[in-house]
Amino acid sequence: MGQQRLTERELHAWRTSMQMMELLRARIEQQLQAGSGLSNADYTVLVLLSEAPGRRMRAYELARVADWEKSRMHHQITRMCNRGLLARERCGSRGMEAVVTEKGLAALKDAAPGHLQEVRRLFIDRLTPEELDQFAGIAAKILDNLQADQPSL
Amino acid sequence: MGQQRLTERELHAWRTSMQMMELLRARIEQQLQAGSGLSNADYTVLVLLSEAPGRRMRAYELARVADWEKSRMHHQITRMCNRGLLARERCGSRGMEAVVTEKGLAALKDAAPGHLQEVRRLFIDRLTPEELDQFAGIAAKILDNLQADQPSL
Repeated sequence: MGQQRLTERELHAWRTSMQMMELLRARIEQQLQAGSGLSNADYTVLVLLSEAPGRRMRAYELARVADWEKSRMHHQITRMCNRGLLARERCGSRGMEAVVTEKGLAALKDAAPGHLQEVRRLFIDRLTPEELDQFAGIAAKILDNLQADQPSL
Repeated sequence: MGQQRLTERELHAWRTSMQMMELLRARIEQQLQAGSGLSNADYTVLVLLSEAPGRRMRAYELARVADWEKSRMHHQITRMCNRGLLARERCGSRGMEAVVTEKGLAALKDAAPGHLQEVRRLFIDRLTPEELDQFAGIAAKILDNLQADQPSL
């Protein structure tokens, strides 16, 4: 450890990137919460389920596509079930699935326009099409590596 | 609201970027917690204070440079004081400042090598120098706008 220190340039690039990512996330969540009472996490789960066949998915599968730890997804589903946004349904011998309820779909439909407008305002419209492609391309490269990587603990 | 829908390309760019930012943040925090018991938030506050003159700063100033809401920073400082990482010190008529303790400095010194190695492994070393500059440049552009912007609630 510690042999490979970061150069000033690398450290500056990391700090700027991290600070931007944190602030962007906070602002997007702020608008979502104020506009619809949903968190980023609620919104992500609603989008993933609403796009799945039958608007349903097993919890472990939902955790996998969201890149979350299973325990985090289980707690999230429980909270969303308690608020009536999701329901748990038994599915034969395959156990339980999370399903979006009508209330959940309505909440997503209600939240989406304001949320996407904020995404446009704070992110998309700040960049030229070339910058957006560059940023997304680099993000995809980092994401692919993160998904292939085992956490080093 | 809703007049300016996102194109498929824009939505894909946003989702990829958001997913990367969330997973990167989670992995960086995972290593930090496992390696040193510090959260990303703890680490950020320790870095900012350790680099400030006298290793001390007023809470509102710390909130400003970190881009956090004041209430979040107050809670964070209280928790870190309770763990002995920070102390609150009165400073004349100017009220209270947060100061890093010896224990806080030791925790930062202990955490930094493993943390920066993980930053290198998951972020810096994944990119060419050109990509790192591109990414940081775009991040700075988004960050500047976020900092100039009033949250739209």
